[in-house]
Amino acid sequence: MFFGSDNTSGVPAPILEALARANEGFAPGYGADAIMERLRTRIRDLFEAPEAAVYLVATGTAANALAIATHCPPWGAVYCHREAHIEEDECGAPEFYTGGSKLVSLPGEHGKIDPQALDITLQNAARVGVHNVQKGMLSLTNLTECGTRYSPAEIRRLSAIARDHGLPVHLDGARFTNALVAEGCTPAEMTWRAGVDVLSFGGTKNGLLGVEAVVMFDPAKAWEFELRRKRGGHLFSKHRFLSAQMEAWLQDDLWLSLARQANAMGERLETGLRALPGTAFVHPRGANMLFAAFPRAAHRRAREHGAAYYFWPNDHSLEGDDTEPLSARLVASWSTTEDHVDRFLEVIAPR
Amino acid sequence: MFFGSDNTSGVPAPILEALARANEGFAPGYGADAIMERLRTRIRDLFEAPEAAVYLVATGTAANALAIATHCPPWGAVYCHREAHIEEDECGAPEFYTGGSKLVSLPGEHGKIDPQALDITLQNAARVGVHNVQKGMLSLTNLTECGTRYSPAEIRRLSAIARDHGLPVHLDGARFTNALVAEGCTPAEMTWRAGVDVLSFGGTKNGLLGVEAVVMFDPAKAWEFELRRKRGGHLFSKHRFLSAQMEAWLQDDLWLSLARQANAMGERLETGLRALPGTAFVHPRGANMLFAAFPRAAHRRAREHGAAYYFWPNDHSLEGDDTEPLSARLVASWSTTEDHVDRFLEVIAPR
Amino acid sequence: MFFGSDNTSGVPAPILEALARANEGFAPGYGADAIMERLRTRIRDLFEAPEAAVYLVATGTAANALAIATHCPPWGAVYCHREAHIEEDECGAPEFYTGGSKLVSLPGEHGKIDPQALDITLQNAARVGVHNVQKGMLSLTNLTECGTRYSPAEIRRLSAIARDHGLPVHLDGARFTNALVAEGCTPAEMTWRAGVDVLSFGGTKNGLLGVEAVVMFDPAKAWEFELRRKRGGHLFSKHRFLSAQMEAWLQDDLWLSLARQANAMGERLETGLRALPGTAFVHPRGANMLFAAFPRAAHRRAREHGAAYYFWPNDHSLEGDDTEPLSARLVASWSTTEDHVDRFLEVIAPR
Amino acid sequence: MFFGSDNTSGVPAPILEALARANEGFAPGYGADAIMERLRTRIRDLFEAPEAAVYLVATGTAANALAIATHCPPWGAVYCHREAHIEEDECGAPEFYTGGSKLVSLPGEHGKIDPQALDITLQNAARVGVHNVQKGMLSLTNLTECGTRYSPAEIRRLSAIARDHGLPVHLDGARFTNALVAEGCTPAEMTWRAGVDVLSFGGTKNGLLGVEAVVMFDPAKAWEFELRRKRGGHLFSKHRFLSAQMEAWLQDDLWLSLARQANAMGERLETGLRALPGTAFVHPRGANMLFAAFPRAAHRRAREHGAAYYFWPNDHSLEGDDTEPLSARLVASWSTTEDHVDRFLEVIAPR
Repeated sequence: MFFGSDNTSGVPAPILEALARANEGFAPGYGADAIMERLRTRIRDLFEAPEAAVYLVATGTAANALAIATHCPPWGAVYCHREAHIEEDECGAPEFYTGGSKLVSLPGEHGKIDPQALDITLQNAARVGVHNVQKGMLSLTNLTECGTRYSPAEIRRLSAIARDHGLPVHLDGARFTNALVAEGCTPAEMTWRAGVDVLSFGGTKNGLLGVEAVVMFDPAKAWEFELRRKRGGHLFSKHRFLSAQMEAWLQDDLWLSLARQANAMGERLETGLRALPGTAFVHPRGANMLFAAFPRAAHRRAREHGAAYYFWPNDHSLEGDDTEPLSARLVASWSTTEDHVDRFLEVIAPR
Repeated sequence: MFFGSDNTSGVPAPILEALARANEGFAPGYGADAIMERLRTRIRDLFEAPEAAVYLVATGTAANALAIATHCPPWGAVYCHREAHIEEDECGAPEFYTGGSKLVSLPGEHGKIDPQALDITLQNAARVGVHNVQKGMLSLTNLTECGTRYSPAEIRRLSAIARDHGLPVHLDGARFTNALVAEGCTPAEMTWRAGVDVLSFGGTKNGLLGVEAVVMFDPAKAWEFELRRKRGGHLFSKHRFLSAQMEAWLQDDLWLSLARQANAMGERLETGLRALPGTAFVHPRGANMLFAAFPRAAHRRAREHGAAYYFWPNDHSLEGDDTEPLSARLVASWSTTEDHVDRFLEVIAPR
Repeated sequence: MFFGSDNTSGVPAPILEALARANEGFAPGYGADAIMERLRTRIRDLFEAPEAAVYLVATGTAANALAIATHCPPWGAVYCHREAHIEEDECGAPEFYTGGSKLVSLPGEHGKIDPQALDITLQNAARVGVHNVQKGMLSLTNLTECGTRYSPAEIRRLSAIARDHGLPVHLDGARFTNALVAEGCTPAEMTWRAGVDVLSFGGTKNGLLGVEAVVMFDPAKAWEFELRRKRGGHLFSKHRFLSAQMEAWLQDDLWLSLARQANAMGERLETGLRALPGTAFVHPRGANMLFAAFPRAAHRRAREHGAAYYFWPNDHSLEGDDTEPLSARLVASWSTTEDHVDRFLEVIAPR
Repeated sequence: MFFGSDNTSGVPAPILEALARANEGFAPGYGADAIMERLRTRIRDLFEAPEAAVYLVATGTAANALAIATHCPPWGAVYCHREAHIEEDECGAPEFYTGGSKLVSLPGEHGKIDPQALDITLQNAARVGVHNVQKGMLSLTNLTECGTRYSPAEIRRLSAIARDHGLPVHLDGARFTNALVAEGCTPAEMTWRAGVDVLSFGGTKNGLLGVEAVVMFDPAKAWEFELRRKRGGHLFSKHRFLSAQMEAWLQDDLWLSLARQANAMGERLETGLRALPGTAFVHPRGANMLFAAFPRAAHRRAREHGAAYYFWPNDHSLEGDDTEPLSARLVASWSTTEDHVDRFLEVIAPR
């Protein structure tokens, strides 16, 4: 009953098997391994982007910060949602990697940037002069931090506004696959066809030990990215162990299956909670994350039985009125089973 | 016959087995895993440093840059050897992480800083004012980039000079274990007892997929380090997979055995090369790395048979006078076998 | 009729005379001039702060950015008002000088931080962990960007909240003297007695060519400040020409007289505008700056007669409904005369 | 008898008069003043560079650091002489402004970069990969820090090497005019015709209170420079007071006359010292700076009579053998008179 985050899960067997296979013999380091060569082609094919530059790093924060720094100058504003991971949860990594750019946070319901707010902000920014931070780039997140989902059309709409102001677009896809399978579209439709220039393509939350790809659909800044990656300490000497993970993950649609399982368990949780008296959902569910408020008594029972998850956005006391609804975040992962969910629903149910 | 670098090798079986064990079930992320708890204690015990702050990152560059940035202000000079990895091979990572400090490179034979040069440099630096970069910290490397070794006494001598000027001391230990077993001393003797404040304790080159510990013997700056690590994108969500590797590596003296094997193969290479007519050693061998010049004809034979290693410090052409000695770097790793070495010696031998 | 900014004015005669006096002969550079020695004492006396560290730079942005960088780490949040100069008008200078800190903007009416908002923000920030930007410092502005004024009591209240969370307090005093004479308190009451740790003490907007003092009431970080100033390129070789300006300015209460004149002209403008039909004031006037909305026809007449000032916060077209009130910012300076004001009022009056 | 530096002198009367004239009335700030408009044209004419971007800042360190940061990425190496001001005397300002680039210092006699050393260094740098700092830019200084002078031909030779490797060239011209009049060439010949891309055109050491122009012969990066200047806190609100100084300085060849006077006094010093028994010159004199070793007794007499200058490169004790030659730096400025020089020569002469 671990619903704290999808990164509290481990990895499926094929990933460890791939590590074992990759472990054979000697291999050139720093991205020159043969597996990376194949993986690059695989990802280009998947995204229908034969020119794309593809690089691996080990954390989502590294992927985001490097992607942003490569596309936004130190004096540029990075427009993102108020609750974006880059704004809230990376301890200033984008500011560090860009050399001091400013994150400008935008409003919007359920973690999705309001297009009108973006438009007005950029129109205002278009009038500024040398005294002001300049327009830099747009950063979206899909799944959002609220567990909701942008459709390709919604991404396209925001990207178009950014593009009208000459801004490149980043997509933080820490849970990209969850969004993708929920949406039922192709990787290209979710990214470059919708106006995305650079993608943080997350593997860690969906079954890898720690691998994220950065995909730049326009490879013009590939070499700059490589230098920034090295300089940031994110170039792995035994790089084959990153490549191998992601190659196995993309094989036989494993990545899609894992995300589908996570999403299905999210849905099962939602269905179950809907039946719990006094429950309200804070955000519509986009894939594998739920934000729901339900009675304190249910939380108390959950904790007594060892269920792990976060109250959200703030902590709450378990002491107090039994019926008061307390909001929480529940995340299902690829390794969440029906049994996990059902047991959780059972223990929180009123007796 | 892969002698290019110890990072072209893979990892021994117990490391992959540890990953498989660590993969069971759910675990808290970001360093709060139970394995890290045990590992911290293990490392403190090993170093006889019960107060030490211990953190994991995945690359040597990250370990070095974060360790240095935590101990040296942006306006501080980092004193290091001319051929130090931080000076030559990290694409400016220390400059990036410190916010623009200056690496001041020092001379010294065979990759070891000349104590007198350090002393004079620091005496001169003591007289500077606001116009000048200030004294920051001393960074040593053991094994050095020339494959030579500092004894604890030599480290102590350099540290004492630094300390006289109020400087903290960093030890880049990408090949720490190789130096340690060659020297036959304890981890404490090689580090804090010799005046080292912060150690990059390398695992990757000695049998891990990608794990380096940063050990700060004085934990005063532990929290600052944690923030810098996060901000640098080097805090792993599925941290247990880092902890597990290093725990297994430190178990049953595996780390020591691996380094001993590498060093023994280095010695075997040296012995063999000594017998090759026209061979000269560029630096004395400290452990598992050799710098030797031997005839072009031998290099040609080596390459024809698929041997991989670097000419060093510069590239050479295989075309030309057969007898001209060309200098190369040969690195043995934990996975180098007697057979690898003997085959190499056989193919380069004149026929 | 120049009401664009107090920095479109020149300097009073005693300042140029002081430059001429300072020009005699040779003088040591970089702050070692005899005038600086006297000036330091003068400022310490003025502020009743015998230990204060006092430094000069030439721009307000430099004063603010250096003061903030000296007191806030790269991972620290700088809490400031939404419309603060450091947030809106310095092109990211604080982010640049701190190495990537995050400005967290706070709401509050009329440019003054709402204490409750500060309190809640800091209480939330107190609960964060390694994933989040940490509490860094509080930065206030007096006069605010809205031309309003904090009383010492109001500053004390905000400082006390910051202090409860262990934060240092910066005061951006680009128009410090205007606020001071309007408030009728002492420099100490407006600063350290109210909890301010470091002050940007502005001279440029109040009659100097370009001099701002940074006053650190606790001199513990004086040397760090000096290094940051040099490294930022803000240490003047012919420093006597900065010192001389500020010394003359502080002599015989010139600085106070200049600010009083500016404030009086602000008041005169306000009184005049109040009589103009259709005028509303956007913010209460704190000293020499007015934010008022008045009919388009009056703006049109003003512009026809060469009056210079900014529409605020946005530009407006002079074409359109005559009676529509358009908001503008009007700033009086030390060199604004009764005649300037009266002429302006005359030309905008309906005929 | 002040020979400490040319920045211990004041400014000639026309400069103060220009300030007084510029002080009339109100003027737009931040470089939009009418004087700057004229000055830009004047400088473009002077340099025969009608497209050049021209900006003013107040210190040489600001000019250099901003010029370099605009032309060199964070991972770029800045090649400069071992004794260059940017390497030795700016407390890491270039590293700060570039975001952590590395200064690579080159040898060369008398402060002038050895072309062969530059060539070899760049050839080596051309072979590096992602692990290494990349080739960034070349920075020359004329007058050099050793008081010697590059001819246009010598600059052209070094620039050509840089250009062959795709590097832009910066010229630190803190004493540009002294070099120019000594060389007897045109500003264009000394700069863009010799391959210089960006010039720090120093006014402060040659008679201004604190003004340096940055001249970019290719204006492609003009806007980036403006943003960096603002962000660095180097954009002056009362900008007219910078423009006015430099305009007056360039009028009626004042700048040339001032430099000629300084150079003539340098020559007079040299001639006088040549006659002093036991004197040797450390570097050939290029203009207004002398590096000479002469007997301790002469130094003692100089100091007794209040002469001010620096021992160079190290401090010496006045106690000791009378005849031991001690090396010193003597700098003449525009305000040094024949009387100053003659008196100095008189007091140091043996009695």
